[in-house]
Amino acid sequence: MTQWGTPPETVTVPDPEPGPGEVLVRVASCGLCRSDLTMRHIPAAAGEALGWRMPFTLGHETAGWIAGTGEPVALVSPTSCGTCRYCLRGQDSGCPHGRAGRGYGRDGGLAEFVLVSDRRALLPLGDLDPRHAGPLTDAGATAHHAVRRVLPRLSAGGTAVVIGAGGLGAFAIQFLRALAPATVIAVDPLPARRAHADRIGAHQTVPELPKRLRADVVLDFVGTDQTITAGIGAVRTGGAFGLIGSAGGRFGGPWFTGLPRDGEVFTFQGSSIADAQDVIALARAGLIDNQVQEFAFGEIDRAYAELAAGTLTGRAVIVL
Amino acid sequence: MTQWGTPPETVTVPDPEPGPGEVLVRVASCGLCRSDLTMRHIPAAAGEALGWRMPFTLGHETAGWIAGTGEPVALVSPTSCGTCRYCLRGQDSGCPHGRAGRGYGRDGGLAEFVLVSDRRALLPLGDLDPRHAGPLTDAGATAHHAVRRVLPRLSAGGTAVVIGAGGLGAFAIQFLRALAPATVIAVDPLPARRAHADRIGAHQTVPELPKRLRADVVLDFVGTDQTITAGIGAVRTGGAFGLIGSAGGRFGGPWFTGLPRDGEVFTFQGSSIADAQDVIALARAGLIDNQVQEFAFGEIDRAYAELAAGTLTGRAVIVL
Amino acid sequence: MTQWGTPPETVTVPDPEPGPGEVLVRVASCGLCRSDLTMRHIPAAAGEALGWRMPFTLGHETAGWIAGTGEPVALVSPTSCGTCRYCLRGQDSGCPHGRAGRGYGRDGGLAEFVLVSDRRALLPLGDLDPRHAGPLTDAGATAHHAVRRVLPRLSAGGTAVVIGAGGLGAFAIQFLRALAPATVIAVDPLPARRAHADRIGAHQTVPELPKRLRADVVLDFVGTDQTITAGIGAVRTGGAFGLIGSAGGRFGGPWFTGLPRDGEVFTFQGSSIADAQDVIALARAGLIDNQVQEFAFGEIDRAYAELAAGTLTGRAVIVL
Amino acid sequence: MTQWGTPPETVTVPDPEPGPGEVLVRVASCGLCRSDLTMRHIPAAAGEALGWRMPFTLGHETAGWIAGTGEPVALVSPTSCGTCRYCLRGQDSGCPHGRAGRGYGRDGGLAEFVLVSDRRALLPLGDLDPRHAGPLTDAGATAHHAVRRVLPRLSAGGTAVVIGAGGLGAFAIQFLRALAPATVIAVDPLPARRAHADRIGAHQTVPELPKRLRADVVLDFVGTDQTITAGIGAVRTGGAFGLIGSAGGRFGGPWFTGLPRDGEVFTFQGSSIADAQDVIALARAGLIDNQVQEFAFGEIDRAYAELAAGTLTGRAVIVL
Repeated sequence: MTQWGTPPETVTVPDPEPGPGEVLVRVASCGLCRSDLTMRHIPAAAGEALGWRMPFTLGHETAGWIAGTGEPVALVSPTSCGTCRYCLRGQDSGCPHGRAGRGYGRDGGLAEFVLVSDRRALLPLGDLDPRHAGPLTDAGATAHHAVRRVLPRLSAGGTAVVIGAGGLGAFAIQFLRALAPATVIAVDPLPARRAHADRIGAHQTVPELPKRLRADVVLDFVGTDQTITAGIGAVRTGGAFGLIGSAGGRFGGPWFTGLPRDGEVFTFQGSSIADAQDVIALARAGLIDNQVQEFAFGEIDRAYAELAAGTLTGRAVIVL
Repeated sequence: MTQWGTPPETVTVPDPEPGPGEVLVRVASCGLCRSDLTMRHIPAAAGEALGWRMPFTLGHETAGWIAGTGEPVALVSPTSCGTCRYCLRGQDSGCPHGRAGRGYGRDGGLAEFVLVSDRRALLPLGDLDPRHAGPLTDAGATAHHAVRRVLPRLSAGGTAVVIGAGGLGAFAIQFLRALAPATVIAVDPLPARRAHADRIGAHQTVPELPKRLRADVVLDFVGTDQTITAGIGAVRTGGAFGLIGSAGGRFGGPWFTGLPRDGEVFTFQGSSIADAQDVIALARAGLIDNQVQEFAFGEIDRAYAELAAGTLTGRAVIVL
Repeated sequence: MTQWGTPPETVTVPDPEPGPGEVLVRVASCGLCRSDLTMRHIPAAAGEALGWRMPFTLGHETAGWIAGTGEPVALVSPTSCGTCRYCLRGQDSGCPHGRAGRGYGRDGGLAEFVLVSDRRALLPLGDLDPRHAGPLTDAGATAHHAVRRVLPRLSAGGTAVVIGAGGLGAFAIQFLRALAPATVIAVDPLPARRAHADRIGAHQTVPELPKRLRADVVLDFVGTDQTITAGIGAVRTGGAFGLIGSAGGRFGGPWFTGLPRDGEVFTFQGSSIADAQDVIALARAGLIDNQVQEFAFGEIDRAYAELAAGTLTGRAVIVL
Repeated sequence: MTQWGTPPETVTVPDPEPGPGEVLVRVASCGLCRSDLTMRHIPAAAGEALGWRMPFTLGHETAGWIAGTGEPVALVSPTSCGTCRYCLRGQDSGCPHGRAGRGYGRDGGLAEFVLVSDRRALLPLGDLDPRHAGPLTDAGATAHHAVRRVLPRLSAGGTAVVIGAGGLGAFAIQFLRALAPATVIAVDPLPARRAHADRIGAHQTVPELPKRLRADVVLDFVGTDQTITAGIGAVRTGGAFGLIGSAGGRFGGPWFTGLPRDGEVFTFQGSSIADAQDVIALARAGLIDNQVQEFAFGEIDRAYAELAAGTLTGRAVIVL
């Protein structure tokens, strides 16, 4: 991102030099995220209010090797202070210093090297391949944050619904299968995504929410008026509805009778570093399958175009 | 309630005869609830869909003495089966059999005697006065259900807001003071209610929500568009908004950016028997002050009129 | 059990007649439990102090069909009142009225018919076979109660140890596999049990606890001095040790430095009705494999002998 | 502490010089702890195994002002890495790097200046007096860690027992009063401590545990064979026993029948930074009264002697 209000460009930047306490990471790959496509539309005033600094390098799903040691790592992208009430309770996704991060307002991973100034951001990968691991830290961790929260409501005989089986939704389906004994239903209008959901473990895949379904949990990775309204209507008494999709939808009905009785509704929530650690542990234990589509750095425009068109089934990563 | 769609009438009914397993309770008093005023407007079809049987005696905040032994008891009004997944996990407010109850679709406490067919509904009062205890089981228990849920979010230095300092809100203020170390702010446009909130322990009382406030918890006992929108806007990242008021309001904004980031929203939720037990224990321990306004049975019309006008500060009880 | 202090006998009893509110169940099968073998040694005074009534029919793992409707059900054996603080919070295993139960102080399932006086004790089996389902309600539910409690401590990359892979331990291994992403290690000196643990999903099976292991959770289904001491020593900081085995062992070391730092220790705990519901739901969902060894009623002495000798791998059930 | 195995001495040390990222704190006061008295007995091998470096300055309850800005702060004494699975979940008291800390193996607060190398260790005091605040971070935080854990078991009508009303126990009594609606019973053989417990809010004070008491929670700040055995015996079914006292006692009975049925036992557990933050917030909100006895630096021997003799009621602080 070279200036506010314009699309990103491929430019040459100097290699960063680590200062005291900083760690240089050679990038193996970086995942692309739908939010990358929205940053060009952020007005300068709004971006500056968030504390973003222009220019910055995009990319907030980064993995690579620590320069010098060669240790494979994935990188946490959100910034957090490590010292506030949120951070010291494992709720760093609520840290007031988290509005800018690696790849949004600070230099991210779509470059050969990236600097890390906080050791909390280095996640050892062990034997995982750093060319594929970046999405674990963002698409994976964000989906995990939502799934982790609803686990206490899911027991055997229960039902969890995932609306939208794209990048984040595919992770959610797998986390639900690995962590809960409930039946998992994936809802997606695209046949290719339903087929993918099926492969990664969804018990049922449907193009739209069944009318009479009453689920323990509905996680909405789309977030239009339509998915929110249908999703809320599908939650049983005492169940949970989580909105992770950023489509900006609304719920038009009255809350007292419209929201699930004695239930729980929650929205946009990012992820904590603990989520990213857990996702990497799940991947290392072989309990999830992190399917990505590899693109070369020169193919980045095509990769973003496929992301925008919704034709990807796995997460797109740019291999450097 | 003698028939669908008409106001209640004072009529003479035969004393009930206890069958096998049933307990006869002589009523000491019964509290009045705003929901009593709405029942005359329920269409027959809707009432019958809920399983209500017409005619029935109003009154779902009943206390008295077990006939024969004279033991003072308060009565649980909601019905629950005691055997389903909800009931066996202490979540009986979610029981599918709870849509009719004592005083709404079944004979309630505004009569000299009432029958109890489930021993779970008998709550021993010890040395509490049965002429005042009825509201503990409904206004008290419902407010407790909401407060209990948000306690983990309230620590010292934190803030809880109660919107509406009427019957339920006044209980909520007292529970928050007894159970959490947070600062309690009561919001009510009526000066008399603010004065009452002040007396029962609110740290601050204000006519409307301060614009810049960011609270850990907001409990809305009103529930209009205005209180929901202001209340949601006053919740910090990771905080909770609970809607208990039944005014039928909506939230007009988009959910993804409009609801509290990583927070919790919940709505209409009744109370469980455990809530009623806890409220009675709080009252017996002297930790809450259950202020009621006594009315004789002949004053019932005036009592309902004051309830409708919002001029009561404590809960109205009809002493029999 | 015909009298205190003597072994059980096979006798003929009249078929029970259901009174008002009671349900007659025709028994399909009843599981045998190690605790059956200890009841003959209970002194009369101790048994009477527990509220046991002599004579009574043994058997507390009962399943069958409701007489009349033929609906397949399993039966909860512990007694609980349904109305106390424990019962109304889903903690009925703590009910003060639970010291006598079906098969211990009251007539149990080793007979053609059994009476049920509390509808909470009837657990619908759906398509599960009542000839095998009895152990789900006791061996299964007790193991579930312990596993459920430790789930929050088990994440991917973590480790759970099960000491003793007999009847209860085999259930615990399967619950851990179905409900947690952790590595499960089964410890048993008997090769046949280790082979069984292996078949039902243990990741590792060992004859004794590895010296340097530090696990998140250790569940001890044996309970000798030796297993308690080794088990406690194998718990990491912040981990949990649960003692379910009744062998009467002690821990000889000082507690301040000997117990796991900031950890959790818990012991004998029974199960709640919710546990039994969850176990049946897990079985109906195909997530656990309830392996039993069938014996005819005439083989009951041989079945108890194998149980005493520890040569069973699955739970023994007497098919009626 | 100038060398292993000898008592501490008063010596002159050079003022420390802050390096990059380090903060210099001018000490206002430092509390004394019973554990200071035991450090002289630690063998060199044991101390070195913990990673302690000799010589070091004693004192792990430090408060003062940031040099330069003058901002009043209290200091966290335990070391933790900030990046491990424990630290990133708010469980930094379990961090494997926590075996040495400020005042035990590293330079502590019984000196004019102390260096802080981790910003997580700086706790802003606001308007609290740094001459008294040191004990909040250790005696206070450790007691808070235990109390916080048992809060879910304490409701109105319930009972919490504190064995030993000295430095930590006095904090526990106050936290229980501020955070739970239960009855608080303080047990201490010393009349002066019972009088103190009475002043700070205990509902009952007794010289020893009543024989028939069954409490929801027992917290043992002594930890002898006698207090552990009596304390365990006083826990109700489903209750909790926490051992914080380091006297090295044992429990001699069998665990299966001896420990509280379905209860919880936990031991030595330190405190997390979040505990220290919460304690300071409680003190700033006026919800606890941090009574200390001031001593001048020249009176340090007398202060330690009173600590050893158990004649202090508040915590002793050395004012610098």
